[in-house]
Amino acid sequence: MLNLASITPATWATQALANLDDILLDHAHCEKKAASTAISLIFRYPEYPQLAIPLARLAREELAHFEEVIGHLRTRGLEFSRQRPSPYAARLMEAVRKSMPGKLLDTLLCCGLIEARSCERMQRLAEALETTDHVSLTKLYRGLLACEARHHATYVDLARSLELVPETQLRTRLAELAAHEAEVIASAPDIPRLHN
Amino acid sequence: MLNLASITPATWATQALANLDDILLDHAHCEKKAASTAISLIFRYPEYPQLAIPLARLAREELAHFEEVIGHLRTRGLEFSRQRPSPYAARLMEAVRKSMPGKLLDTLLCCGLIEARSCERMQRLAEALETTDHVSLTKLYRGLLACEARHHATYVDLARSLELVPETQLRTRLAELAAHEAEVIASAPDIPRLHN
Repeated sequence: MLNLASITPATWATQALANLDDILLDHAHCEKKAASTAISLIFRYPEYPQLAIPLARLAREELAHFEEVIGHLRTRGLEFSRQRPSPYAARLMEAVRKSMPGKLLDTLLCCGLIEARSCERMQRLAEALETTDHVSLTKLYRGLLACEARHHATYVDLARSLELVPETQLRTRLAELAAHEAEVIASAPDIPRLHN
Repeated sequence: MLNLASITPATWATQALANLDDILLDHAHCEKKAASTAISLIFRYPEYPQLAIPLARLAREELAHFEEVIGHLRTRGLEFSRQRPSPYAARLMEAVRKSMPGKLLDTLLCCGLIEARSCERMQRLAEALETTDHVSLTKLYRGLLACEARHHATYVDLARSLELVPETQLRTRLAELAAHEAEVIASAPDIPRLHN
């Protein structure tokens, strides 16, 4: 359902548990970036007005999650601050083709794959957190899973509904981009991030 | 309370009523731009973490208004589309100083003045709409007034709470920027827009 081409190794969750402050701060950055990306797509593609409302709703949810994660950071005595970003999203987006309709199709599918990977990682993290006494963080990640999966579906469904290419081409391209995503995340630098 | 240095002439509302499609489309663009600006401030100033939650909330409200306005456009058989933007915001922002703390202070105050002018214009528009049979648009603009006024206060209160400059300097600068805003809006080109 998530259309991913690889499974996160158990070692990732172990590292994440040992670096929860970094993971939470990265998570806040990811939610803010996701909101910003959704809004920028509304800006860039006014000729596809079908994008406007689904992406505005998605951006609102990402912002609500951003606020929620900031609350958890504050509970831990931390504040939102700068952080060395993961190169994951930028490297993933390198596969986006330069001309239409491939450009928009690939962008939407890559956005969908980022949501899918977030969902998969949050599932791993929630499972790992359940073995600890981090009750509120377990609830946070359990609660976000369904949203991330829905956001994945939103992006793929949008790509489909615009009828940019026939369905078989869309599926083939989604599989190609998922293979690329699996390579990108496997080769990400060894720092504690959601997508590393 | 809105800290504006000029009052919109009655002729503006007359022109707006005669060009409601343009005004609504411009309004949609303004809400999207306001959300985008708020998020970009969270990006640009992570060293002021007090901005994060108020601006994320404000962005969510702007996006909800964006969706509401798109609904009204669709009721009129229109879709969100490109539109020649008003030079208002860019010209207003030319007054922002280049170095800190003036840069952040001016940016927040200018954002606050844009919200204030939106509020004042929506009030004029709501009054004009009440003389017509546009019942749902009258409700829309009556309903948005309080939000716009609150957003104005949010920006001014944030500028104050960061203690970038003493209160008297903040008030002086707000008055200077309001005078600049009045000039910018008075000299805007004669096309039907919220801020023209």
